[in-house]
Amino acid sequence: MTARALGADGVFISDVNDRELLGTVTNVAKRFGGDFQVESGKSWRSIIVDWKKRRGKVVHLTAYGMPLPKVIREIRRSRGDKLIVVGAEKVPGELYGLADWNVAVTNQPISEVSALGIFLDWFFGHRRLEATFRNAELRIIPAKRGKRVLNLKP
Amino acid sequence: MTARALGADGVFISDVNDRELLGTVTNVAKRFGGDFQVESGKSWRSIIVDWKKRRGKVVHLTAYGMPLPKVIREIRRSRGDKLIVVGAEKVPGELYGLADWNVAVTNQPISEVSALGIFLDWFFGHRRLEATFRNAELRIIPAKRGKRVLNLKP
Repeated sequence: MTARALGADGVFISDVNDRELLGTVTNVAKRFGGDFQVESGKSWRSIIVDWKKRRGKVVHLTAYGMPLPKVIREIRRSRGDKLIVVGAEKVPGELYGLADWNVAVTNQPISEVSALGIFLDWFFGHRRLEATFRNAELRIIPAKRGKRVLNLKP
Repeated sequence: MTARALGADGVFISDVNDRELLGTVTNVAKRFGGDFQVESGKSWRSIIVDWKKRRGKVVHLTAYGMPLPKVIREIRRSRGDKLIVVGAEKVPGELYGLADWNVAVTNQPISEVSALGIFLDWFFGHRRLEATFRNAELRIIPAKRGKRVLNLKP
């Protein structure tokens, strides 16, 4: 949901086939709009290899990488679709070599999903936070207090 | 860990007394440095009431709030220490009234910890990602590939 909200076109959930998670994200994407793609079940390695075959670039988020502020310009200017890789727990060492960039969202331990959110915010130049999504059934109207939701369901 | 890495001085984990979580964060803070404070067990309401008594300000992160880019300047310029509140699951309606600002890190469903990370990054003007922490036992040296860690333990 963080990837979707921050402007990613889709997500691969690798090495698992979690139907419940898949259902939740698909359901949110349907209700809140946009064309977010969710795919699961493929191995992380085959996702990366396929991505690179199609001339896409791979960004691996890790506390051991180069500081985000130092490399974001180069990444933004580079050609090809970007695959942002975040690991859960221990990440296979091979991944560091496969990635075009190993990027640190702080060189500190940090939750992977927050690293992903911060990276995407920077990648889109801090300009995507107010984006609206087409084909939404629900739209939240910003409010100082309480909850205002627009029901757009036909 | 996200709060610590992004520059917060500490965290309250309200309404639970999770010794394992407390231990993990305290351990990371010790190894990676800084003076991060962790407290748990108090109710969310008493934390907020005490905070406001000490003239602190309360920022509640919620998809229903005002867009972050619209309010961040006002928050940054305001006086008093800031308490950033992120809820798990359903948040009590009362919280919207107690908060000085209800702030949306996108008006979309999003993981709370990523909202917290993005908020702190904006709050500190996108300038805290390369901060170093004093009294660290370990320091990660940024690397293009692989892992480089400095052991500073005396």
